Amino acid sequence: MRIALDAMGGDNAPAEPIAGAVLAARDLHIPVSLVGPHDLIARELGRHENSQLPIEIVDAPDIIHMADHPVEAVRRLKGSSMNVAVQLVKSGAADGFVTAGNTGAAMVSALFGLGRLSGIERPALATIFPTQKGHCLVLDIGANTDCRPEHLLQFGRMGERYSRLILGTTRPRVGLLSNGEEESKGNKLVQEAHVLLRGSDLNFVGNIEGKDIPRGSVDVVVCDGFVGNVMVKLAEGIAEFTFGLLREELTSSIRGRIGAILVRPSLSRLKHRVDYQEYGGAPLLGVAGIVIVAHGRSRAVTISNAIRVASKAAKSNLLEALGPDDSVSLRTSSNSGLVT
Amino acid sequence: MRIALDAMGGDNAPAEPIAGAVLAARDLHIPVSLVGPHDLIARELGRHENSQLPIEIVDAPDIIHMADHPVEAVRRLKGSSMNVAVQLVKSGAADGFVTAGNTGAAMVSALFGLGRLSGIERPALATIFPTQKGHCLVLDIGANTDCRPEHLLQFGRMGERYSRLILGTTRPRVGLLSNGEEESKGNKLVQEAHVLLRGSDLNFVGNIEGKDIPRGSVDVVVCDGFVGNVMVKLAEGIAEFTFGLLREELTSSIRGRIGAILVRPSLSRLKHRVDYQEYGGAPLLGVAGIVIVAHGRSRAVTISNAIRVASKAAKSNLLEALGPDDSVSLRTSSNSGLVT
Repeated sequence: MRIALDAMGGDNAPAEPIAGAVLAARDLHIPVSLVGPHDLIARELGRHENSQLPIEIVDAPDIIHMADHPVEAVRRLKGSSMNVAVQLVKSGAADGFVTAGNTGAAMVSALFGLGRLSGIERPALATIFPTQKGHCLVLDIGANTDCRPEHLLQFGRMGERYSRLILGTTRPRVGLLSNGEEESKGNKLVQEAHVLLRGSDLNFVGNIEGKDIPRGSVDVVVCDGFVGNVMVKLAEGIAEFTFGLLREELTSSIRGRIGAILVRPSLSRLKHRVDYQEYGGAPLLGVAGIVIVAHGRSRAVTISNAIRVASKAAKSNLLEALGPDDSVSLRTSSNSGLVT
Repeated sequence: MRIALDAMGGDNAPAEPIAGAVLAARDLHIPVSLVGPHDLIARELGRHENSQLPIEIVDAPDIIHMADHPVEAVRRLKGSSMNVAVQLVKSGAADGFVTAGNTGAAMVSALFGLGRLSGIERPALATIFPTQKGHCLVLDIGANTDCRPEHLLQFGRMGERYSRLILGTTRPRVGLLSNGEEESKGNKLVQEAHVLLRGSDLNFVGNIEGKDIPRGSVDVVVCDGFVGNVMVKLAEGIAEFTFGLLREELTSSIRGRIGAILVRPSLSRLKHRVDYQEYGGAPLLGVAGIVIVAHGRSRAVTISNAIRVASKAAKSNLLEALGPDDSVSLRTSSNSGLVT
């Protein structure tokens, strides 16, 4: 078992990814291949006590930046840390790939390098949303902006399996995101997907509304990547906005400032519970390899969590479970359908 | 100037709508026609000191309930408070219609009864979202689940005019909701709408992401009614979730409970700022009449705010401004395109 980590991915690279690799190797005993420019990584790794740790460096001279155009960068920078890490997975030298870099580039690099699983037309990016009852999995959150009903059915299947194998949910309830609970609600895509999901072997509970997500009404939320992306970013914006306002209100009076000192531990626990970064990252489901995309702002502990999730996914034989016919075959695709 | 209020609409009808009418008539000096079963309303109104107030009762024997199917109920219950109130607007006996009832039925009743403004293919429901900088207008939030690019352009135009005339924004910045800021981002609908909006005379600032809404990056957010509906309900669910967790965390320790007493005024100001009900309601833009749909849970003060907004819209000649050719013509439509 070994996870390939893009040491150059994210706003805080290479320091935080490397610190995350050290955490994962030391505390979780997961071997990590740090992929990036050798000397730079060796120097940064040298800041940590690492002599006994199962960490190796795999040289990759090129770097894909956060603002780069995904397809263009992945094609041009063959020796990028992302492409090299993906090749480690493809060749079997690594069992999973983790990056906090450019999400679009990660998806393109993984899809070009690994291909899709048999039976999956469109890989989907999934994320974990905190809910009143714990958490749920939402997919797609940005890999596919225009979907067909069959794609949403496949998202439901993949989400159900991920929820079962990785999140440990016994019989995941799958909901279809719509503008009303009634079967007749939804745009054309959702109305057609509803019929497919209802006819499937999934534990499909029907349409759900936006408010049902934080309420924890389901374990897997199915939506197209446009709506999913808008939602995830809106939730991020609302969290930022609410805590910002709260800070403002608390500091606007002496009474508030004294109260703030007392409620600080409560607020910090609250922030922790609503912070989806705690969950490590977003799995790209449907490509023929384990791929976890962590948030660009990820710190070491988040990276370490993502490595843990990738390792668990590899051990759980997630890929075999995701392919509808329970066999994994590699297929390359020139028309990715991914958002780039 | 007179506003027709659906006295039977909402979870707290008729008590709260009638109390709201009393507030609006007494404090804002806005004449109100209370529409609903005469005796029931007269009895409820009798609980208030109302002898000098400009409130009249208009009898409407039928009631459309929150769970009724919109088109079916509007067609069957000709004498419903909604239909009768809409007819008051149509005949000129009232200058605007306010309801906290079944949103779908309100849209259908208004569209069937009033028709569309000239040049508007699809009326849109708009709502006000609180932001770091104040608020912004989001439309469509549920009238149209499947849109064409021209519809989004029309939403942008109507939103811009509402923002200018009713919300007092000088040169409203209009943003198109997408999954990335670049022009190339978006699903097919959004990519095509982007071109139309860019070529319009609006102050179009380009694509925005979900997180830009609470940040207050724009004054008007354009999206299709499916995405808008999901967003508004998600925001509602997140607020409910966050305040629920906060309560839980604060009461889990003695320190938290003492702090909670001190921060209560701050929290209540915060709740007030993020509570979109404070803004009164959602205007249905594009029908040939002023229509404001308030939240089903609205209390008297929210109803009174909605009446104030309706009155302002009527005085501002909003309808003339909304028609692209600056003239209002009534058109009835059998194919509403509204979500029902």
